[in-house]
Amino acid sequence: MFHYPNGKKPQPSAGPARSNPQTYANRGMNLETLLNDTNEFYRLHSRAVIHKKPTPLQIVKVDYPKRSAAKVTEAYFKQASTTDYNGVYRGKYIDFEAKETNNKTSFPLGNFHDHQIHHMRECERHGGICFVIIRFSRYNTQYVLSTEQLLVWWEQRESGRKSIPLSYIEQEAIEVPTRAMPAIDYLTAIEAWLD
Amino acid sequence: MFHYPNGKKPQPSAGPARSNPQTYANRGMNLETLLNDTNEFYRLHSRAVIHKKPTPLQIVKVDYPKRSAAKVTEAYFKQASTTDYNGVYRGKYIDFEAKETNNKTSFPLGNFHDHQIHHMRECERHGGICFVIIRFSRYNTQYVLSTEQLLVWWEQRESGRKSIPLSYIEQEAIEVPTRAMPAIDYLTAIEAWLD
Repeated sequence: MFHYPNGKKPQPSAGPARSNPQTYANRGMNLETLLNDTNEFYRLHSRAVIHKKPTPLQIVKVDYPKRSAAKVTEAYFKQASTTDYNGVYRGKYIDFEAKETNNKTSFPLGNFHDHQIHHMRECERHGGICFVIIRFSRYNTQYVLSTEQLLVWWEQRESGRKSIPLSYIEQEAIEVPTRAMPAIDYLTAIEAWLD
Repeated sequence: MFHYPNGKKPQPSAGPARSNPQTYANRGMNLETLLNDTNEFYRLHSRAVIHKKPTPLQIVKVDYPKRSAAKVTEAYFKQASTTDYNGVYRGKYIDFEAKETNNKTSFPLGNFHDHQIHHMRECERHGGICFVIIRFSRYNTQYVLSTEQLLVWWEQRESGRKSIPLSYIEQEAIEVPTRAMPAIDYLTAIEAWLD
């Protein structure tokens, strides 16, 4: 069972409701929607096949009502053991995690957890292309940070800073502007890594 | 919302309870458990990073009780838009679906659905290694069938046979015997495709 960090409950607006395809209130605003649109664009244009994984749930109780669909009546969020997105692009395995912040000057490392970092290291070791997309919502912009760049900050987090300064990100990461279509063209950003 | 084919309700023993890590009753018996063990073995031995995707659920209602974990109180199974397993092996994108049957002489094509076949075609087009693992539970054996081999049967299903004869599978597919560790060594089976 997954307890949210610091015992904080997620706000309904930022929680699982986001993955409800009928919720368009934040369309064009939140990272998950922007990336789902981008991935759909990539698939429709035969550029890549990349999907978001479903939210992992521990299912405890299921009802099987007569003549209607099975209904899950008790389930809990589980901590994901991998990153959220993966797929194939130009024969390569692509794997990434995407997070956003409202902060103005830095990106909190608490947005990632050990399992995800471990998974990214493993994928890189096997020749996958792994990275994170971090979005600064206030500025409506996002950056691609390589596993290597993330690890520099991750590994010092206990003795040093708990966040990555925006100044470092601006200088070292690849900026991916928000556009019309595709919304977040991260594949173009990582193109240079592939050759 | 996902209605099970033919309006049949899944049996609890064959349904979501399978993915409950505390259910060991069928250990060594069902395909999902065998593959989860195999993938864990591959990860621990640094051979590949391959995971099963979580079961996709449409979350409708979530309770946020005080001082305890968020509880999903209403959710429905959704049809998956991809296959269940993917990951990276020797730098290549690996993608497969796994199904089992109790049949004696053929494998019913109804075990797959359009979305999955479409996804497999797309992944192949982008250079991924896609296949299906089909298990004959009665014989405790399974086979790796390439996307191409599956498509031969899939494309004639409406005018012709609704299942793949075991005789074809025995002759054309790669048999993967059930062993101790790893339980189903499918990577060794596909090795020849990679070079």
